Amino acid sequence: MKVMVVGATGMIGRAVVEKLAARHEVIKVGHTGGDYRVDIASADSIKRLYEAAGPIDAVVSAAGVAQFAPFDQLTDDDFLMSVHNKLMGQVNLVRIGCPYLSNGGSFTVTSGVLGREPMKGSAAISLVNAGLDGFVRATALELPRGLRVNAVSPVWVKETLIALGMDSTNGMPAQQVALAYVESVEGKRNGEVIDTRDFAK
Amino acid sequence: MKVMVVGATGMIGRAVVEKLAARHEVIKVGHTGGDYRVDIASADSIKRLYEAAGPIDAVVSAAGVAQFAPFDQLTDDDFLMSVHNKLMGQVNLVRIGCPYLSNGGSFTVTSGVLGREPMKGSAAISLVNAGLDGFVRATALELPRGLRVNAVSPVWVKETLIALGMDSTNGMPAQQVALAYVESVEGKRNGEVIDTRDFAK
Repeated sequence: MKVMVVGATGMIGRAVVEKLAARHEVIKVGHTGGDYRVDIASADSIKRLYEAAGPIDAVVSAAGVAQFAPFDQLTDDDFLMSVHNKLMGQVNLVRIGCPYLSNGGSFTVTSGVLGREPMKGSAAISLVNAGLDGFVRATALELPRGLRVNAVSPVWVKETLIALGMDSTNGMPAQQVALAYVESVEGKRNGEVIDTRDFAK
Repeated sequence: MKVMVVGATGMIGRAVVEKLAARHEVIKVGHTGGDYRVDIASADSIKRLYEAAGPIDAVVSAAGVAQFAPFDQLTDDDFLMSVHNKLMGQVNLVRIGCPYLSNGGSFTVTSGVLGREPMKGSAAISLVNAGLDGFVRATALELPRGLRVNAVSPVWVKETLIALGMDSTNGMPAQQVALAYVESVEGKRNGEVIDTRDFAK
């Protein structure tokens, strides 16, 4: 398969690329690096990406930014950025990408466990993640030509917690998180929100 | 209690006003009618509403528009309108309204069952409804002064189906749907997504 990984230079993206590259041709896409670059907050940028990268069998997105902050400190701009970047950016990767995917191809976007299990500071992120889950469940009912779409909903990644200087005891190694993406790409699932904890060893 | 109902002239809003008015002072707010008017897609309009309506004990929103259409016919503008109206409009009713609510007051927004149980045509609506549910669950963890926030998630309303000329067999009468809102306003729930089917007779 020819698999395009958007967010290929991030903590999760790198692990996904490593897993998929063993069996597939992987096109790495990043905001500032990779084979191609994209700003997912821009529909025009996404359109140019698909035009350049050509027909694809699967798209994996581990991209998108959303703001974590105490509720009373989240600004209008924080909500707008979160909605237009991680939420609508990934929605548009699916919407705009449909014609560029080969029959039976798949989309995998990244939501996150805070959508269903919030914590203080996650109001904008929980909105975004839950919205992505809802979009995926609905869109799967209507994709043409056997196309599939799933959301991977990761828990905190151990390497991310370490990089942030936080307690990483309950973090999940990126290599295990990546297994959920491989399952979405290579398996038969459609319209599912895949909890990475199902892939813990 | 002094309860402000936004969307008071809609099918659900009218039934909520009727139920609440028996025991509370109700301020009716609509897009084109009511005691006050608001465009929830505008943060400035919401701000002016709260300034005019003064201190309030509870806010109920049965307002907001989101686009229902086949996935391949939903435009960029359909998604943006849905996100900025029903989703961010109600989010902003909560965010902007906090300082205007008395201690122990409550917000009740309206999502919908399509967030969790999608159908063909609901991609944008499912995104919006699920996003609202996620926002409410998270925000409840951080509201100050004993404030509460819930989402009521209605099934199809019988009167709406009749007005649309659709089969209303499985629709729920607006008067029963309204009971979920009363429960949110008068009860102790916080951070919950209240399924109106729990109030079917």
